[in-house]
Amino acid sequence: MKYSIITLFPQIIQSYISESIIKKATERQLIDLEVIDLRNFTTLAHNQIDEYQYGGGRGMVIMADPVVKAIESVRTPTSFVILTTPQGRPWKQQDAKKYAKNYNHIIILCGHYEGFDERVLKYVDQEISIGDYVLTGGELPALVILDSITRLIPKVINQESHEQESFENNLLDYPVYTKPYDFRGDTVPDVLLSGHHANIQKYRDEQQLLVTLKKRPDLIDESKLNKVQIELLKKLKPKGEN
Amino acid sequence: MKYSIITLFPQIIQSYISESIIKKATERQLIDLEVIDLRNFTTLAHNQIDEYQYGGGRGMVIMADPVVKAIESVRTPTSFVILTTPQGRPWKQQDAKKYAKNYNHIIILCGHYEGFDERVLKYVDQEISIGDYVLTGGELPALVILDSITRLIPKVINQESHEQESFENNLLDYPVYTKPYDFRGDTVPDVLLSGHHANIQKYRDEQQLLVTLKKRPDLIDESKLNKVQIELLKKLKPKGEN
Repeated sequence: MKYSIITLFPQIIQSYISESIIKKATERQLIDLEVIDLRNFTTLAHNQIDEYQYGGGRGMVIMADPVVKAIESVRTPTSFVILTTPQGRPWKQQDAKKYAKNYNHIIILCGHYEGFDERVLKYVDQEISIGDYVLTGGELPALVILDSITRLIPKVINQESHEQESFENNLLDYPVYTKPYDFRGDTVPDVLLSGHHANIQKYRDEQQLLVTLKKRPDLIDESKLNKVQIELLKKLKPKGEN
Repeated sequence: MKYSIITLFPQIIQSYISESIIKKATERQLIDLEVIDLRNFTTLAHNQIDEYQYGGGRGMVIMADPVVKAIESVRTPTSFVILTTPQGRPWKQQDAKKYAKNYNHIIILCGHYEGFDERVLKYVDQEISIGDYVLTGGELPALVILDSITRLIPKVINQESHEQESFENNLLDYPVYTKPYDFRGDTVPDVLLSGHHANIQKYRDEQQLLVTLKKRPDLIDESKLNKVQIELLKKLKPKGEN
């Protein structure tokens, strides 16, 4: 996978990718990453890339020309161009999987609170939002997208880590415990010490459902539950409800 | 506002806060920020902070003891403790506003894909998720929370920037345009060049509704629309529907 990240703040991206798991993935040549400074594509003095907006009102707007030129400087026929923006489609784990599998070159254009000239959208394949909140720039969203895709690329992290992780089967993860058995009076559920693998698995399946019901009932998709979870769900529903 | 960020990767946090708008806010003493290395709180050899999990299965688990000790090293009676985790409550713009207003010390414990011992939750006020995807660590989520709160703190950014930004009134932003008038054949909507302020405002109000209907119909709350938007919505609804 190759990523090209277009940004007004290349140093933010550089810092992250030279610290994290992304660094290891780059060193092992599992991914290829380039950071492009949007200001290199201005044709104006003083590296100017923004201007007052038509119709008046708050703030400046990033001009279309440098943005489109930056995209065109790295785009190939198989590239996929993302713009990070609160206006975008909400990013989900399923998208990370799809992108990891389907694309070989992802261009991420980091949005900016000033806003881009609307006409850049013609040159973008997908606007993406990482959540319903406003940030000072699109650099953190770009890194979130980069990180969530990269960790799914084979060999980047231990594949065991992907089993039963959050959002698999639309469920949250089950609770985990380690030493000591008694931590300030709170002990580990006894089933986990039983050595009885079937019971442990049942406990974890049930916990996944219970945790999700408690914290994120909106996620649950009954068609994705396993037998243990369907049984538990039946028991939990008040009589008369189906 | 004071933030204390507890992490296994202090360098990732340090890099971001020495580059972004956060740096300026710190320099102007609008916020106070400390980064705490979780490994400093282990009592084991080799800075070990994780252990095999009870019940067996994938991966290691971060032990409760160093985590709780790290929290206690910075907590005061008015501190609010956040844990970043996919299991958490989805972070929203309204939360950023509430936190910016209500708290004076936020402790952010960066989650980790290995998972924390469940018993740390007793020492956490709120689990927060920045979206339905899995990341390699809680550092990006911590920075997202930090950034979204900080930009709402008075004087951090130009207050004009907050007017009519995305998610205000549950609507996305209207499209913006700047020079040139004609960009590769795409021109600016004429109303924006009209100089007629009332018409421009009407166009923008309508565009906010249209953009949101197209991209995020789930966000719309009719009780928060203004007159222009309510009128437009009535026109758009097929006859017979109310």
